[in-house]
Amino acid sequence: MRVQESYPVDVDAIRADFPILERKVGGDISTPGEHDDDTTPLVYLDNAATSHTPEQVVDAIVDYYHGYNSNVHRGIHHLSQEASVAYEDAHDRVAEFIGASGGREEVVFTKNTTESMNLVAYAWGLDELGPGDSVVMTEMEHHASLVTWQQIAKKTGAEVRYIRVDDDGRLDMEHAKELIDDSTKMVSVVHVSNTLGTVNPVSELADMAHEVGSYIFVDGAQSVPTRPVDVEDIDADFFAFSGHKMCGPTGIGALYGKRDILDEMGPYLYGGEMIRSVTYEDSTWEDLPWKFEAGTPPIAQGVGFAAAVDYLDDIGMENVQAHEELLAEYAYDRLTEFDDIEIYGPPGDDRGGLVSFNLDSVHAHDLSSILNEQGVAIRAGDHCTQPLHDKLGVAASTRASFYIYNAREEVDKLVDAIDAARELFA
Amino acid sequence: MRVQESYPVDVDAIRADFPILERKVGGDISTPGEHDDDTTPLVYLDNAATSHTPEQVVDAIVDYYHGYNSNVHRGIHHLSQEASVAYEDAHDRVAEFIGASGGREEVVFTKNTTESMNLVAYAWGLDELGPGDSVVMTEMEHHASLVTWQQIAKKTGAEVRYIRVDDDGRLDMEHAKELIDDSTKMVSVVHVSNTLGTVNPVSELADMAHEVGSYIFVDGAQSVPTRPVDVEDIDADFFAFSGHKMCGPTGIGALYGKRDILDEMGPYLYGGEMIRSVTYEDSTWEDLPWKFEAGTPPIAQGVGFAAAVDYLDDIGMENVQAHEELLAEYAYDRLTEFDDIEIYGPPGDDRGGLVSFNLDSVHAHDLSSILNEQGVAIRAGDHCTQPLHDKLGVAASTRASFYIYNAREEVDKLVDAIDAARELFA
Repeated sequence: MRVQESYPVDVDAIRADFPILERKVGGDISTPGEHDDDTTPLVYLDNAATSHTPEQVVDAIVDYYHGYNSNVHRGIHHLSQEASVAYEDAHDRVAEFIGASGGREEVVFTKNTTESMNLVAYAWGLDELGPGDSVVMTEMEHHASLVTWQQIAKKTGAEVRYIRVDDDGRLDMEHAKELIDDSTKMVSVVHVSNTLGTVNPVSELADMAHEVGSYIFVDGAQSVPTRPVDVEDIDADFFAFSGHKMCGPTGIGALYGKRDILDEMGPYLYGGEMIRSVTYEDSTWEDLPWKFEAGTPPIAQGVGFAAAVDYLDDIGMENVQAHEELLAEYAYDRLTEFDDIEIYGPPGDDRGGLVSFNLDSVHAHDLSSILNEQGVAIRAGDHCTQPLHDKLGVAASTRASFYIYNAREEVDKLVDAIDAARELFA
Repeated sequence: MRVQESYPVDVDAIRADFPILERKVGGDISTPGEHDDDTTPLVYLDNAATSHTPEQVVDAIVDYYHGYNSNVHRGIHHLSQEASVAYEDAHDRVAEFIGASGGREEVVFTKNTTESMNLVAYAWGLDELGPGDSVVMTEMEHHASLVTWQQIAKKTGAEVRYIRVDDDGRLDMEHAKELIDDSTKMVSVVHVSNTLGTVNPVSELADMAHEVGSYIFVDGAQSVPTRPVDVEDIDADFFAFSGHKMCGPTGIGALYGKRDILDEMGPYLYGGEMIRSVTYEDSTWEDLPWKFEAGTPPIAQGVGFAAAVDYLDDIGMENVQAHEELLAEYAYDRLTEFDDIEIYGPPGDDRGGLVSFNLDSVHAHDLSSILNEQGVAIRAGDHCTQPLHDKLGVAASTRASFYIYNAREEVDKLVDAIDAARELFA
């Protein structure tokens, strides 16, 4: 029973699925996996970077290697057929999870969210963008989209524009209306900001994009793991996310695309599995989604990804979201008690499950380092949003990010650890 | 003790590391991982498509998720430091395995061999190739290189040329001398043919390439898993291979490149982890190899890849090669007993550990299907070398491919199964 009435999820029951949460830290880091000299209990608040992996997912991966490891698609033998069923069904399972009614034909497995974006930028952008065209992003984009479209625009002569972020960390939608115009061919926006926690009105932006004949690409790396997402409700043309931030393995991401659009696009990577016929002179392409999956795909990772989706569905994404929001609001409230802490992004009742902040006169890296000595794992840096940090006037921030296995008491431990750091630097 | 005096490897001891080899097949394939209705012992001879994964590698992956799963590079906290050490060290370990003295700076982790090729084709080829330039391949190239260079050549106006394969399945080196000329900017050749088993003289081809100022890209997907490889002895400029064909996990491949060349190349995928600084206007790039690894990398897979290399080194690649050659020669000898079997590629004492063939008047797929009923897993199809099959005058072939855990008796089972198929179709 991982869901309960009074509180959205039963954290203790969930934690039991994640053995890593029981480990201690603080010893020699040069011997990964050896914990004899570790003595400090772990408080893991770096979930926006990567989540942990429940036993159900680890078991699915082990079962694959023990039971039906094989190359897919082309094999007639038993093992290859089992692996093909599992790998291909995983596409349907992930499609279902995000409300993609086209099933596997609308979900391409990539290596991470970043590759999902580059796939569209290379396969669609290089062909379709040119001088006079614009790509509209936001000032809070992750480098995965910001750098990708910036560089593809440079190659093609297109222009990039950034929707302004206001003082509360929300998008200036009037500015969006100004920027999205007849020149716009692509609007690329982050769904939930990995730095500010802002939940952006992607559906409204999709309408604005479609009104001028533009596509919209939604970066769902922080949204799919933490809330119910329906790509068809949003009316996204493309949507990207990763396994490792949602209880799944590293080494796999997904790209959703509307079938008609994916169908019209030329291929991305070339090689085996993505061709229909090849001569020494020319080649033709396989059906969706295989056209975009060249070479031996991430088979074990696809199986693990589907198991992660099963795990989250078992909890219920509404419950995951409610839990995230409770923790984020509590963390926001506790951190706003202190005058020497600056929090970035909107208020606590209107944000994803993360809080980025700075403690006056202590560098984010130093704060993270001191917190680490107390077992509290948070992220310090620019969180792959350097230009946004420049705009905020800081080089870096510290970020605490929560997931289904984090307890309210861990927020208290974070605040206590900050107290201790404050005294140290006083 | 996995190595012994009289015979290069102790197959029984090795098989004990691979629980999948004990499974039976033949039941319902729509329930991957459930084997209750499977009754036929498995004879797995599809190793050129993918090898199996020993417990040592599975354990390394599980240890990662249980013990130190975290995002890498940017984290100050303990878990991130442990994961970073393991992931970055894995690059050094793989570099050492192929004799790359530059260590991690010369080894980029990709998702598979195919991506390694596309990386160079996109990042180097799109910038450097143009009308008047030529890319020289061979008629036995895998689609991973053939289609990639063919399509990049089409985009850039360069010409592709194919070194002739002679009747024995060897490269016509006189033809190579004719084709590789002052127009040549890239020679892309497969080291060990995945269809013919031919071991190509890549070192000689490297000399020919360098003499005219061309680079050479070696496709080592079938060579690194099966024999000692030293990329510096070969003098390869680029060299590609995958984890899943050499006891490692799916979802990871490697690209070796000479440091100076990788350094000069522009980036491939854009995003986090590969940048040094980003503004809304422009970006600069990270040091090698991270410049080519955008987004969250395949961390667990890198750890598993290093464990696979440890496993193979423990056996000794000379022993792996000797074992492969013994099995290939035995299979070649046994199959040449039959007048109705046509074998492709060079004689048995001069080939990698695989044999592709056709049984007269039985389609490769039908033969594979009948063999599957007897538990013998071989591959039927064009093995991602369609143009080569066209040249051979067949649409498909069946391929038996061997690895360290295959016993001589499994070759006998293959021949027995072919006998049974022959009777069925008589």
